[in-house]
Amino acid sequence: MMEFNKEFKERTAWAEKVVKEFLPEETTKQKLVMEAMNYSVNAGGKRLRPLLMCETVKMFGGDTENVKPFMAAIEYIHTYSLVHDDLPAMDNDDYRRGRKTTHKEYGEGMGVLAGDALLNYAFETAIDGVLKSDNPARAAAALSVIAHKAGIYGMIGGQTVDIMSEGKPQTKDSLDYINELKTGALIEASMMAGAILAGATQSEVDVIEKIASNIGLAFQIKDDILDVTGDEEEIGKPVHSDEKNNKSTYVNIMGIDEAAKEVKRLSTEAEECLKSLGKEDEFLLMLIDWLTSRKK
Amino acid sequence: MMEFNKEFKERTAWAEKVVKEFLPEETTKQKLVMEAMNYSVNAGGKRLRPLLMCETVKMFGGDTENVKPFMAAIEYIHTYSLVHDDLPAMDNDDYRRGRKTTHKEYGEGMGVLAGDALLNYAFETAIDGVLKSDNPARAAAALSVIAHKAGIYGMIGGQTVDIMSEGKPQTKDSLDYINELKTGALIEASMMAGAILAGATQSEVDVIEKIASNIGLAFQIKDDILDVTGDEEEIGKPVHSDEKNNKSTYVNIMGIDEAAKEVKRLSTEAEECLKSLGKEDEFLLMLIDWLTSRKK
Repeated sequence: MMEFNKEFKERTAWAEKVVKEFLPEETTKQKLVMEAMNYSVNAGGKRLRPLLMCETVKMFGGDTENVKPFMAAIEYIHTYSLVHDDLPAMDNDDYRRGRKTTHKEYGEGMGVLAGDALLNYAFETAIDGVLKSDNPARAAAALSVIAHKAGIYGMIGGQTVDIMSEGKPQTKDSLDYINELKTGALIEASMMAGAILAGATQSEVDVIEKIASNIGLAFQIKDDILDVTGDEEEIGKPVHSDEKNNKSTYVNIMGIDEAAKEVKRLSTEAEECLKSLGKEDEFLLMLIDWLTSRKK
Repeated sequence: MMEFNKEFKERTAWAEKVVKEFLPEETTKQKLVMEAMNYSVNAGGKRLRPLLMCETVKMFGGDTENVKPFMAAIEYIHTYSLVHDDLPAMDNDDYRRGRKTTHKEYGEGMGVLAGDALLNYAFETAIDGVLKSDNPARAAAALSVIAHKAGIYGMIGGQTVDIMSEGKPQTKDSLDYINELKTGALIEASMMAGAILAGATQSEVDVIEKIASNIGLAFQIKDDILDVTGDEEEIGKPVHSDEKNNKSTYVNIMGIDEAAKEVKRLSTEAEECLKSLGKEDEFLLMLIDWLTSRKK
């Protein structure tokens, strides 16, 4: 059996390398915005989206060179969404991953601009990936999925409903709706783009979308659980923040035990879907297991 | 001789129609963000960028169907930049084109999100344009130019230097730098994308870039002049706003007469470049003339 921790560390390190490879040099009179972009991306994070994209490419026997610009692009989109989410007009957070948020470090105007710049740069990076690809048609189709999942019917849609729901009591269904878009859509985009780049069929891409949707939701519910049960030092961010922010979470709607069962149900279903594709992917299976049993 | 006003009105109306055609329906739980996007785009404006794109396509004998998603995309990018520029963290403007700015109408959080949504939606629209195009390679190349000109080496770069320069005295060179990026880059993208879509050669695209750069700069200097000499009702926005905001402009650096001469020099050069392409385009020539002699 594969030694998961070692593999996870190595594969994440490679995803990290790819994400950094495409970052802009800090040059020209406007280098301040490049510094702010790089500051935001270099703040770290799990690099889960590029990792999932690359692993999906490998599962379908695809090439790990053509996928690189898309791995970088999806992480830049994720990062811009955090930079804008942290703004005073949104969640108003001063710290993320143990250091100042972008607008606290560079000022609010630069926070807006650095987020815009990252989103735009994601598309610059990805469209160049299309132009350089061995298979531009597949690459353009992958980019289309990424673009749509990041937009008003995907991530931005989820953020909108999230803002609209502030201070209102939520049901499990309404939380599911928000999280499927806000968190799930980009995870779906990551895995679907990987599958498309590797030449998966439409029905395979559909199964991948379902798997990714489950992973995204399970991941979010697990986050809510960790906010209550987690160790502040281990998870690297304040715990009980949802309670302080008076935020509806799966835990306060379902209780911890039911929430944990839901994580289990979603991840088991994802693993079964994955097996149904008939492609044994030990690492992806273990990754799903880890994502939903993690302590941080 | 062509009746310019009539042609201008008709062709602008067509550009307006195309821009509106791709706007999202206001559906789903997150329809608020779609309303805010549509509110921003429907606020009006000259539709100069899609008009220039389409006219450049026609000049090179291209097809006016394939260009439509790119016309919409460039206008959405322009609009998002205005929405974010108006935010309290940036220029803090409450009114634009005689009505409330997006964040004043929908709240600051939605102002950030609607801008993000428009930028993302521009790429959604354009990449779908690539997928549906008769010539995907050209369409992808056009999209690449749009993406790069909108980013840190283009429009966002210009906005960054503009923010950094606030309250500092400017020279003509430093103003040129800001405006070539902040205003010029998207006008260049519009005309270059049009040329590329229509199959222009690289050297033709280079000439088009130069023409567009001159148009962009002349347009901006003319804006500065109108802010001093214009009629508030006619131009539809407050005059003397630059003076009130203590903003460096071409007028206070060069004086009105020299600024007017510079507009003339830039537009004459643009017209000569246009003629050098050997494609008689009466409308584009008259459009350049109008842009630099306009009273609003």
